[in-house]
Amino acid sequence: MSRWPIPDPMQRALALAQEAADAGEVPIGAVVVRDGAIVGEGRNAPRAAHDPTAHAEIAAIRAAASALGDERLAGCELWVTLEPCAMCAGAIVHARIARLYYAAPDPKGGAVEHGARVFDHPQSLHRPEVYSGMGEAEAANLLRAFFRERR
Amino acid sequence: MSRWPIPDPMQRALALAQEAADAGEVPIGAVVVRDGAIVGEGRNAPRAAHDPTAHAEIAAIRAAASALGDERLAGCELWVTLEPCAMCAGAIVHARIARLYYAAPDPKGGAVEHGARVFDHPQSLHRPEVYSGMGEAEAANLLRAFFRERR
Repeated sequence: MSRWPIPDPMQRALALAQEAADAGEVPIGAVVVRDGAIVGEGRNAPRAAHDPTAHAEIAAIRAAASALGDERLAGCELWVTLEPCAMCAGAIVHARIARLYYAAPDPKGGAVEHGARVFDHPQSLHRPEVYSGMGEAEAANLLRAFFRERR
Repeated sequence: MSRWPIPDPMQRALALAQEAADAGEVPIGAVVVRDGAIVGEGRNAPRAAHDPTAHAEIAAIRAAASALGDERLAGCELWVTLEPCAMCAGAIVHARIARLYYAAPDPKGGAVEHGARVFDHPQSLHRPEVYSGMGEAEAANLLRAFFRERR
């Protein structure tokens, strides 16, 4: 049996999640892609940075917007290892991300298919296309291993 | 007739909103207060900063967390001139802000009493006390004047 290969951007997001774990942060990674090339990336860093907003998605979006010199990332994709929370889903709206790919769902903290369902309200100024599941087991395993060690 | 005085933190948030307008940004300002003293402040800056996450609340929370050296702002208040959006409401949750004061409601983009109602889901890891209305007319007038000039 051969396993369906995980797309390159999600492989990079998973590597960034591992970097976060190695630094003692919850292992979540994200990249922003435009025309097939990574234009911004990030990983969780709130503890070391003393910054409650330092989620992987926020870091990747800020890096991409800075690199492209535009507060809007029209036509860009965001690849992230976990379903975004309300804060990050809101940032995805503001950045006008065209397509969101996330690996694992997050019934506890996610706000795309759970909880606040940020994109599903008439007030949402923008709705990305959303795809999930690619790399789900790998992303979930990273999180499980991280929290197991800390218990 | 004497008008009920606007509390000092909201007066500062309104002044920051005016600064944003003067810089060509949507006029919204915010301050974080601990034990009666401002420990972080911010105003809207997404256009100039090329940063879709550069909302007043995010800037104020990041500044306060950096100043206090802690990703959590337990016991702190956030004062902001407009009802927070989903991104900022999510950041308020992550920062564990104890009390949220906002001046004007935002039926179009707000996510506290409108839309995603971020604090109202069982998944919300934290719920601040919420108060609104102090300085409402002043905050709304700043926004109206800003958008009137741009039409």
